Amino acid sequence: MKQIYLVTGNKNKLREWQQMMPADVSLSSADIDLMEMQSSDVEEVAADKARRAFKELGKPVVVEDVSVELAKLHGLPGPFVRFFLKAMGDDALYALTRGDEPRAVVACAVAYFDGEHLFTVRGEVPGRIVPPRGENGFGFDATFMPDGYDTTYAEMSAEDKNTVSHRRRAIELFIKAVQE
Amino acid sequence: MKQIYLVTGNKNKLREWQQMMPADVSLSSADIDLMEMQSSDVEEVAADKARRAFKELGKPVVVEDVSVELAKLHGLPGPFVRFFLKAMGDDALYALTRGDEPRAVVACAVAYFDGEHLFTVRGEVPGRIVPPRGENGFGFDATFMPDGYDTTYAEMSAEDKNTVSHRRRAIELFIKAVQE
Repeated sequence: MKQIYLVTGNKNKLREWQQMMPADVSLSSADIDLMEMQSSDVEEVAADKARRAFKELGKPVVVEDVSVELAKLHGLPGPFVRFFLKAMGDDALYALTRGDEPRAVVACAVAYFDGEHLFTVRGEVPGRIVPPRGENGFGFDATFMPDGYDTTYAEMSAEDKNTVSHRRRAIELFIKAVQE
Repeated sequence: MKQIYLVTGNKNKLREWQQMMPADVSLSSADIDLMEMQSSDVEEVAADKARRAFKELGKPVVVEDVSVELAKLHGLPGPFVRFFLKAMGDDALYALTRGDEPRAVVACAVAYFDGEHLFTVRGEVPGRIVPPRGENGFGFDATFMPDGYDTTYAEMSAEDKNTVSHRRRAIELFIKAVQE
């Protein structure tokens, strides 16, 4: 049985992860505060965070980081998106793109480090930024419509969102990588 | 004679600092690469960087960090501005504000750490973002017009810019702080 620690204080996130783990992986959460490095490359941020988490815990760790890459902003705000949501509110991405190129990629980077092996994966969902619609989810969910859907993340049920989300894709890639 | 190391690889920056130093301070440069923390607070970024620089050098250090705070973006991109200039080009700030609220504050944070005393100062220049004009300077200089002037940073001579700049104001505050 492989024991891995997911760095999060969010029980819903832990549950989403646990539901997807294969039978031979036991996932617990570790609620620790980690400094993040300043980089526009979300995989680099996640890898650095995994190293810090391992240094603190001394056990195999996995961390996540989210990035929103707006075509209009040439790939930014990227991992800095959380600062924009905090400063400008949940509709920040719509305020940044209004009346202009709405293409965006939402990405989740997952990094694993056990003191010896370090790897990162990146799950991404292409789509576009739209005027806010829907009441579910959180953060930028009401302003992001994935390609192939005519609803925003915030108009989907949690189950439906989980089947298409950037996090889901990243977790799937992570499981593949762990099994190899 | 107090010996301080300015973390920079830029000889012009070192000279600008040296010209302003009081007679009892000797300033040399240390060209080291430092990780920066992800924060929208430029003084916090600078303070963290000063701690890292001291850890590496073991001598009194001073570091700088620049932030551009757009009213339209509720104070962002802040210290992340360098990523926006790199991704979107030198006119990034104009692209971000075009046709909208042009108010901006350009700030320079300076942090000092000698292993015992840590302090930061912040020099700032209020102004507005305008269509690019002028050939001097670098980065966002062509798009920033300080309050009280009808020229952009890039339309000023280096000497004139140095008398009004965010860096000059920060260095002046730093000298006051060092002398106390």
